[in-house]
Amino acid sequence: MESKLQKYIDDIEEIDTSLLPDLQSRMDNLTKPKGSLGRLEELALHICLIVGRPDPPLKNREVFVMAGDSGVVEEGVSAYPQEVTPQMIHNFLNGGAAINAIAATTGFDINVVDVGVKSDIGADSPSLYKRKVRRGTRNFRKERAMTIEDAMQSIVTGIEMVLERNKERGLDILATGDMGIGNTTPSSAITSVITGSPVKNVTGYGTGIDPNGFVTKVKAIEESIALHKPDPSNALDVLSSVGSLEIGAIAGVILGAAIIKRPVLVDGFVSQAGALIACSLKPEVAAYIIPSHQSFERGSNAIWRHLGLRPYLYLDMRLGEGTGALLMGNLIEASLNVFNNMATFQDAGVSGKR
Amino acid sequence: MESKLQKYIDDIEEIDTSLLPDLQSRMDNLTKPKGSLGRLEELALHICLIVGRPDPPLKNREVFVMAGDSGVVEEGVSAYPQEVTPQMIHNFLNGGAAINAIAATTGFDINVVDVGVKSDIGADSPSLYKRKVRRGTRNFRKERAMTIEDAMQSIVTGIEMVLERNKERGLDILATGDMGIGNTTPSSAITSVITGSPVKNVTGYGTGIDPNGFVTKVKAIEESIALHKPDPSNALDVLSSVGSLEIGAIAGVILGAAIIKRPVLVDGFVSQAGALIACSLKPEVAAYIIPSHQSFERGSNAIWRHLGLRPYLYLDMRLGEGTGALLMGNLIEASLNVFNNMATFQDAGVSGKR
Repeated sequence: MESKLQKYIDDIEEIDTSLLPDLQSRMDNLTKPKGSLGRLEELALHICLIVGRPDPPLKNREVFVMAGDSGVVEEGVSAYPQEVTPQMIHNFLNGGAAINAIAATTGFDINVVDVGVKSDIGADSPSLYKRKVRRGTRNFRKERAMTIEDAMQSIVTGIEMVLERNKERGLDILATGDMGIGNTTPSSAITSVITGSPVKNVTGYGTGIDPNGFVTKVKAIEESIALHKPDPSNALDVLSSVGSLEIGAIAGVILGAAIIKRPVLVDGFVSQAGALIACSLKPEVAAYIIPSHQSFERGSNAIWRHLGLRPYLYLDMRLGEGTGALLMGNLIEASLNVFNNMATFQDAGVSGKR
Repeated sequence: MESKLQKYIDDIEEIDTSLLPDLQSRMDNLTKPKGSLGRLEELALHICLIVGRPDPPLKNREVFVMAGDSGVVEEGVSAYPQEVTPQMIHNFLNGGAAINAIAATTGFDINVVDVGVKSDIGADSPSLYKRKVRRGTRNFRKERAMTIEDAMQSIVTGIEMVLERNKERGLDILATGDMGIGNTTPSSAITSVITGSPVKNVTGYGTGIDPNGFVTKVKAIEESIALHKPDPSNALDVLSSVGSLEIGAIAGVILGAAIIKRPVLVDGFVSQAGALIACSLKPEVAAYIIPSHQSFERGSNAIWRHLGLRPYLYLDMRLGEGTGALLMGNLIEASLNVFNNMATFQDAGVSGKR
């Protein structure tokens, strides 16, 4: 098992930046003052470099919504009951959730992957992938969330979902999403351990706990870290002791994107925790990540800084599911329309700078 | 003439907020934690309130790119020669500019309005409106940029463009844009006078002057304000002494949007200077503005704060033309898709908060 994950990780190559001078020169010859489109220019060039061509296709866009349950909800860390995880999966499949509305606007198809929901998902749908690694994690305030083998399997599940979908139709842009009541708790635990920030600085109100719930949540995370003492440099130790299955699977989607050399839009806090795991396993992966947005959830900023990534959108969102990531779809399209369809100064007969 | 502008201004009504409790209640019943879509929720509700219905149409989107020349370019305040203004208009009409690429992605039609370009625009195109008020402004470091009558006429031109297009096809979303070499100089002058900020705090590098050019630009603006001493509470005095024709026309587009009760996406710094003029003439107009983005140009932030508006996008853009404004098109669509197409907790059978 270890060798399977390791083999995938070994397949990942650094992005090739040799195209950059040509790309930058084209960008600077377009009829606009140099650099005047700011981060839109950065975005276009980044996508081109990841894909390795000046005209990357943008057609096949898929979001991977990884779903799982967290045993630590027993500690009263979430405002919603655990039954909401499967209920929301049905809502995704019926088209009624926020991710459906945003996917419809931004041209994404949705894959919902059960990697660790506690109950069985009754529904059958071409969008639903039943890949349970186990029925939820254990309550990590009392024991490790899962074994090292399960942690590896959650990551491999994410990688293989990407490889499977890519084989089926070819993927142009990927995005990560999550569903799992209570999963900001393992996200905060992972963030605190890997970034070294104090728990209370990277813990937020999640779906909307009250101030007492917040105190309970911080205490549960602090005690869990004290119990397991995960090694910050060992991502599998962190994931298996205080993580969750859907976070492992999100890490897998990010690694998978790097394997197939496609950009992956990483959503807010829970997805970012997956990015911490992925980049800890293979630092080169960070270059394949498009940091979509800064979540309102405390801790989001610490992760982006740790990864050296600057998010594009600041919309105070804190829903998850991939909602923030998908909003980047149109921005990417606009940035590449600019890059590929604008006239140059020469073409348009526009005078340059004096 | 004064009475014509005043009559239009008198037609503007405050937005009616009586729908808000019903809209908020629907928003809060959707299957997501309350408030978890952050500013996307704010955006959807704002558009609904402006239009006065829960399902505002979003089909007919038009950007008004107001073009004019500034006499103050004689002072060496811009990195590009004045001939670029008409050259870029041809580029707009031929589809080669940034605004064309972004409009194509975001579903906007482009109107280019010559309100004060110095030279004649030879081209004929259904997208080009020849409404010159005068051939560029005078050099306001030496004399007033234009008469009070011309200032009023520039604003009326913007208002009437909106009324005309609205009569022709009905407008759902409007956006402002600008083209005019040197026009960050009048924008900074207007911003300094109306917000009370020192000139150097609201003056930037425009299309890309060097540090010496920056010193020249600040000095030219300071001396112009000292010469004319415009009355900060009299928008027509400010516009006619240190403004420009396209900024007046942008103010008109914003007033026009308020007259027809449609949202107007205000672009970056130059458009924001138009918003200062519009809101100074009629403070109620601020409620019809969707503050699209914070420009990289120093001074953008001072205007949004003065108007009590918080921009949505922070992408370090500084191109103008309406490019930042149009990027909001898809965000608006996503926000209203969420609002109108998501399931409620009841519909979806999802449990609420404990």
